[in-house]
Amino acid sequence: LTEFELIKRYFHFANPQKEEVALGIGDDCALLQLPLDEQLAISTDSLVSGVHFPEDAPPFLLGQRALAVATSDLAAMGARPIAFTLALTLPQADENWLREFSRGLKQMAEYCGLALIGGDTCRGALHLCLTVLGSTPKGKALKRSGAQVGDLLCVGGSLGDAGGGLALLPKAPSPPAPLPQAGEGLGERATASDYLRERYWSPMPQLVLGQWLLGKATAAIDISDGLLADCTHLAEASGVCAQMDTSLLPLSDALVDHFGDETALNYALSAGDDYRLLFTLPPEHLAGLQQAFPQAAMIGHIQEGSGVVLLDKHGEPRQAPHSGWQHFQ
Amino acid sequence: LTEFELIKRYFHFANPQKEEVALGIGDDCALLQLPLDEQLAISTDSLVSGVHFPEDAPPFLLGQRALAVATSDLAAMGARPIAFTLALTLPQADENWLREFSRGLKQMAEYCGLALIGGDTCRGALHLCLTVLGSTPKGKALKRSGAQVGDLLCVGGSLGDAGGGLALLPKAPSPPAPLPQAGEGLGERATASDYLRERYWSPMPQLVLGQWLLGKATAAIDISDGLLADCTHLAEASGVCAQMDTSLLPLSDALVDHFGDETALNYALSAGDDYRLLFTLPPEHLAGLQQAFPQAAMIGHIQEGSGVVLLDKHGEPRQAPHSGWQHFQ
Repeated sequence: LTEFELIKRYFHFANPQKEEVALGIGDDCALLQLPLDEQLAISTDSLVSGVHFPEDAPPFLLGQRALAVATSDLAAMGARPIAFTLALTLPQADENWLREFSRGLKQMAEYCGLALIGGDTCRGALHLCLTVLGSTPKGKALKRSGAQVGDLLCVGGSLGDAGGGLALLPKAPSPPAPLPQAGEGLGERATASDYLRERYWSPMPQLVLGQWLLGKATAAIDISDGLLADCTHLAEASGVCAQMDTSLLPLSDALVDHFGDETALNYALSAGDDYRLLFTLPPEHLAGLQQAFPQAAMIGHIQEGSGVVLLDKHGEPRQAPHSGWQHFQ
Repeated sequence: LTEFELIKRYFHFANPQKEEVALGIGDDCALLQLPLDEQLAISTDSLVSGVHFPEDAPPFLLGQRALAVATSDLAAMGARPIAFTLALTLPQADENWLREFSRGLKQMAEYCGLALIGGDTCRGALHLCLTVLGSTPKGKALKRSGAQVGDLLCVGGSLGDAGGGLALLPKAPSPPAPLPQAGEGLGERATASDYLRERYWSPMPQLVLGQWLLGKATAAIDISDGLLADCTHLAEASGVCAQMDTSLLPLSDALVDHFGDETALNYALSAGDDYRLLFTLPPEHLAGLQQAFPQAAMIGHIQEGSGVVLLDKHGEPRQAPHSGWQHFQ
């Protein structure tokens, strides 16, 4: 199996077709044609075996999770997904592994509406690098830096589930469950531990929510490193203080049932991998948010100052558990 | 040194400033604003330690070479460089290594006119993934697929030097030589072996040539896997036969002096890493090419058929040496 055969066999997806793709996979570069008055949004993510996922990760789940994780950055800008590139480094060209990996990748590409337009394959320790491309109306993208005093602090859905699921690995769902449709919950058709593992393996980038927030939210970020760590990034970029009421954090029944209240709350505050959107919203948009996205929740307020302040249900300050993931500490 | 400190210290380049960059490094995505009537050209390359470069590669040379290699794909489309992302996986955050690597990267970024707009850093075996972004006038990009019967087959400069240089590693140039200006040769100020090693470590993406070829060349590719392998790709994509006269291949004095005629020719045909452009040109543009780019050379003709045919100086067919690099054979 040569590199060219490998790419042709596993990475020439016919779908989704995107009118913005003027030239797809197979030349020195791909070419995109953006609509008038739109800006290109671009983000690159690496996923390293043994760091970002277990070394024996099931390839189907890995393929769909890798693309979901990368695409979450487009959701956080309110961008409409267009295309992605994949640089895949593999110890060997195992055709069973490639078939399952590309099936997972393709499924998430179709779910997100992303065409695979290029990349690279080579031999080495398992390593994925994905670059995702989308577009936003000119000047309208959701940045981290726009939060205003008086805004509400909100999240797109339950927190901590992926952290709980990671703690419950290595048992992977078998056979892989089908992906939900946009907005569909998972909890009603699985045991608590299956649900949590699935939230780790199959985070759904909140693309619809991100685009709904355009022109409404003042700032947004996706929660990859953990709520506290990513909220700190947003507060620093905006020059404000985020006051968070820990009793308002949305916790799934599955997480609380399996781990108890205190551990569930710690996962919600500190575990990464949820890929929910965290955003700041002027109060007049709260009713619209709750109607359109019932799983979203208001969890605090933006005020003057800096950093993140945690309050308990009595409005008393509380200590934060350890903060988010750091690669080089 | 946290991930955030690392990025801030080593990867916040002030230059080059590009007016297309609406939002640079530090948010969930970067944002680009393309000029009207231009298409975005995008390419992703991985460089893996022990595969694409020696494990003890000097970090300055590695930084500038990695970006040069990636940017060569923009040159091959005739694209104007805009920006790039870097996903950097490192065994540890060694500040000396990072300082030298980022200095090399920055030097090549300035040479090419590429702003660093995003990326990712994490811990693992040394691995680089670069995504480069440029633009071309709508519908004008140089593809591999446009070669026509009657076109001349041309290359942008001497071939085989990087292959000779690779054979002469591991001695790295010390201290690193300054990069040449566009179009400047290297041979006159170094020994043959220094020159060849430098051609391996510091290939210059032929950006000026690529943009000159817009509207003139019918097809183009950059030579990364070796002349024969990449010429085969071009011939296949265009549905033509490339007839190549091996006596016309431009060989540097340094390569011939050091390795002799036969080995020099084999490097020119089969070694990768030169990153010269290979392109097909209607005959009426040859005089203009030779005037603007004296180092470029006509090396054959496009005719009906398929594949690549090699002729010797008497016009007799000759055997090809083994073909280009394959990762998975």
